[in-house]
Amino acid sequence: MLSLILAEAALETVPKVIVNHISVLKHANKKGKSGQEILLDRSYHHRAMNKLEDAGKRGRPDLVHFALLEAMSTPLYQKGMLEIYVHTIIDKVIFFHGNIRLPKSYFRFEGLMEELFKYRQVTSDTELLMEVKDISFIDLLNIIKPLHVIGMSQSGIKLSVEEVARRHQDKSVLVIGGFPHNHFSSKVYSKLDNVYSINEYGLEANVVIARVLYEYEKKLFKY
Amino acid sequence: MLSLILAEAALETVPKVIVNHISVLKHANKKGKSGQEILLDRSYHHRAMNKLEDAGKRGRPDLVHFALLEAMSTPLYQKGMLEIYVHTIIDKVIFFHGNIRLPKSYFRFEGLMEELFKYRQVTSDTELLMEVKDISFIDLLNIIKPLHVIGMSQSGIKLSVEEVARRHQDKSVLVIGGFPHNHFSSKVYSKLDNVYSINEYGLEANVVIARVLYEYEKKLFKY
Repeated sequence: MLSLILAEAALETVPKVIVNHISVLKHANKKGKSGQEILLDRSYHHRAMNKLEDAGKRGRPDLVHFALLEAMSTPLYQKGMLEIYVHTIIDKVIFFHGNIRLPKSYFRFEGLMEELFKYRQVTSDTELLMEVKDISFIDLLNIIKPLHVIGMSQSGIKLSVEEVARRHQDKSVLVIGGFPHNHFSSKVYSKLDNVYSINEYGLEANVVIARVLYEYEKKLFKY
Repeated sequence: MLSLILAEAALETVPKVIVNHISVLKHANKKGKSGQEILLDRSYHHRAMNKLEDAGKRGRPDLVHFALLEAMSTPLYQKGMLEIYVHTIIDKVIFFHGNIRLPKSYFRFEGLMEELFKYRQVTSDTELLMEVKDISFIDLLNIIKPLHVIGMSQSGIKLSVEEVARRHQDKSVLVIGGFPHNHFSSKVYSKLDNVYSINEYGLEANVVIARVLYEYEKKLFKY
């Protein structure tokens, strides 16, 4: 089984320290929620975010939404051959159950994530669909227990995607950054067994995901 | 030069015939716009849409957003080696200029498209970025004048993506449906020189785009 971790993902609710900023109050008010219930989003909270640590890696739920849809739209995931995890920049991990698919509409995705962070889990009538736990990237690796931890980053060794998929087939975890224009923190980087760069240009998370999963499928399904 | 047409795309403003439906009025009012200025969106206008012809292929701007971002995030597009067109279900064609990139935030994309449909073009301080014209799929082909028109559809001949990219390199147009779970109309289908199915499962537009453009890049850039 292949696993994918979207690491240090820019997905969280508005942190307490900026919850009273005017841009947050206005946005929350418009949505009829409290500031701490809504997702941190640079599109709305840009000015408030200056105060935050690691601001450049935070507040991009749109990017996380894309990356997840990309992975969940693959036959690999739909056939139950790929586990997907989101590890967030503030060390929460989202677990998906029963091969669920996320809504394509951003507005519905946002509502679902706000529900998840508020109640810690999302259920259907009969089953648990998603849950979030306060654990770190290292804790998550200890749960998955992979044979190889493979990071994708421009700072890695240049290698074709085809070759990445060929080299690492058994019980591998692919680690892809869930943030814009930036690098893994040393806490994540130090746990990667191999780091590969698959293009001379920096590629966005969804493009990396599309290419790597496709090459894995080609190997597994002999396309 | 390779071209990509997202054909019969589910992107349009609310049609006159349902502009007074309660779900449209409520949504438009919340946005401070008139009904005809906002995008038709199944997430909000589901019940109003029953009255529309071809309703199953319409009102999915989220899906069009994804497909466009997928294409615009590729090195192929960013190096100016791919032209992208949106042909909509009601025979409008969007032209993009100067290698523009669209916003990842859905909320910003929506605003931009509403501006485009209202003013027929979007400009920066100095240049034309996008324009929309009332022309059909056939008119668009007459403008592009491709050597091959290649459609991707589950109803086509089974072929690997690698082989599609190998067979059609010169002045080809890739035609991908910009709608959910459905087929090209005969007006489009009859203009396709070849129709290929790249997976036994129906793949979403963004996945097809990611895979085909990646295989073209592999051929062109010798990854």
